[in-house]
Amino acid sequence: MQIGVNLSFCVKRWVTPQLWAPIVRETLDLDLVQFSFDLIDPMWPDDLLAELAEELRSTAKQHGLAIHSAFIGLAHYTYNQLLHPNPRVRDAAEAWLRRAYRFARLAGVERVGGPLGAIASRVDGEEAESIAEVDYHDLVARLIRLSAAAKAESLSELYVEPTPLRREWPWTIAQAQRLSADLAGAEVPWKYCLDWGHATFEPLYGRYRAGMSPWFKALGDSVGMAHLQQTDFQFDRHWDFTETGGVDPAAAAAAQREAGLADRPVFLEVFYPFERDDASVLSAMRRSIAQIKPVFA
Amino acid sequence: MQIGVNLSFCVKRWVTPQLWAPIVRETLDLDLVQFSFDLIDPMWPDDLLAELAEELRSTAKQHGLAIHSAFIGLAHYTYNQLLHPNPRVRDAAEAWLRRAYRFARLAGVERVGGPLGAIASRVDGEEAESIAEVDYHDLVARLIRLSAAAKAESLSELYVEPTPLRREWPWTIAQAQRLSADLAGAEVPWKYCLDWGHATFEPLYGRYRAGMSPWFKALGDSVGMAHLQQTDFQFDRHWDFTETGGVDPAAAAAAQREAGLADRPVFLEVFYPFERDDASVLSAMRRSIAQIKPVFA
Repeated sequence: MQIGVNLSFCVKRWVTPQLWAPIVRETLDLDLVQFSFDLIDPMWPDDLLAELAEELRSTAKQHGLAIHSAFIGLAHYTYNQLLHPNPRVRDAAEAWLRRAYRFARLAGVERVGGPLGAIASRVDGEEAESIAEVDYHDLVARLIRLSAAAKAESLSELYVEPTPLRREWPWTIAQAQRLSADLAGAEVPWKYCLDWGHATFEPLYGRYRAGMSPWFKALGDSVGMAHLQQTDFQFDRHWDFTETGGVDPAAAAAAQREAGLADRPVFLEVFYPFERDDASVLSAMRRSIAQIKPVFA
Repeated sequence: MQIGVNLSFCVKRWVTPQLWAPIVRETLDLDLVQFSFDLIDPMWPDDLLAELAEELRSTAKQHGLAIHSAFIGLAHYTYNQLLHPNPRVRDAAEAWLRRAYRFARLAGVERVGGPLGAIASRVDGEEAESIAEVDYHDLVARLIRLSAAAKAESLSELYVEPTPLRREWPWTIAQAQRLSADLAGAEVPWKYCLDWGHATFEPLYGRYRAGMSPWFKALGDSVGMAHLQQTDFQFDRHWDFTETGGVDPAAAAAAQREAGLADRPVFLEVFYPFERDDASVLSAMRRSIAQIKPVFA
């Protein structure tokens, strides 16, 4: 299996390719990267983005790194994106993604993905079981349009990352299957990025229904990749593997292989508090990769 | 003392004034708000921002809420802002702030602030004691320019929020004093927003030097407000006061009064995991405000 790293650990630290490329290649001994839009905001000016895309492309090549995909990070996920209650804010999120696709093409990155968005909460704190049908249909129409936009930028694959929130979509396997069916005719295929801290979130799914294997098996060919993290199943922790949690890397690799998904890449995606010192982050990343790489490779 | 709430607890949940205004006014029984740019990105289109600013202004008025200020949130803080290694990215961050000032003016909000930025980390993980002089002088020049931009938008006050990171500025009292002196001639005054989870961060300051009172006393008139949170002093937690930590609200209020800063407002600023359920967030917020309001008011 291909194992790579999402640049989430570099956010606000090793923010240029000249900084993160040697860390990924030499310190972590990896050659597969998932770029994070926490390092570059697609809303920055066009000419700056063009310069940064070229820098990303050439520095990755120089260090022998393949950039598999570019993913939405913490910054953009903070907003409600394509499901904001105001349709004009949804339009702004759609425009953001078009700019993200364009940046990816300029950087030579063929695949883009992330979570789709969240409806608003209610004033009384009650949560509906899922988003309304009218919001779902609007979302599907936007994803179809976005797929055409991705085609125009020569992208090869787009990803939806399911998140464990009733206000987002999809958060159940059935919702994911329905969305896949509704996106079947998209010009650039929409696949899933499944995360070991999302499908396993017990407060939402319950202790006995939480788990990654059912998602792998039910979604099968629709699965494009997995995000790996350590977590306690009580929150979406995005810890590294120096932390104690419920994800056993060997069992995670076995679950993916058993579902017939050994050809889908896996990316470690971990976040550190901004105030944690750099040396301990590098040390923890090195020890995490040393632990999981032999299991997945 | 005036006690209010930063809308950080509303991020990705109660994202429109129609949703958060009744929660602040009725559920929390507060009338003072600090708006968060995690709810509205100043990079959204001009006409949309104008519409959202008008909605913010009129809904706040209708609910009897004063919007004291608008602050940078998690989304923008994720980037390196005014200290990014690439000067053109710094320019983009400066442009972002100009748009934030414009939005504030349109919404009738007179004050804007937040952390300033972070230099990049080194590949070897070593951390310099502080940013380079050349970066500091560039930062000061940008803050002077931004003050002029704020004047053009009729703002009355700007804020720097010190953060406990060597790669940001200022992280020591001496740095903050130097910056205040260098910004003394600014057209709109730059003041400090001090945070109970920043000045108290023991891994950086050491157990016996960490603390808020020295900052209050040394910076005096330069202090514009305080951010309140519960924390364990080991990370910048931004917990609410249903959590167990080291901040005693009564002692916090006393420290601010003793420093002669009883006329500076205090804002509770807490963040919840996106996946936590809405009802428990509302309940925890209500209990937190009930605990701290009598102490500060």
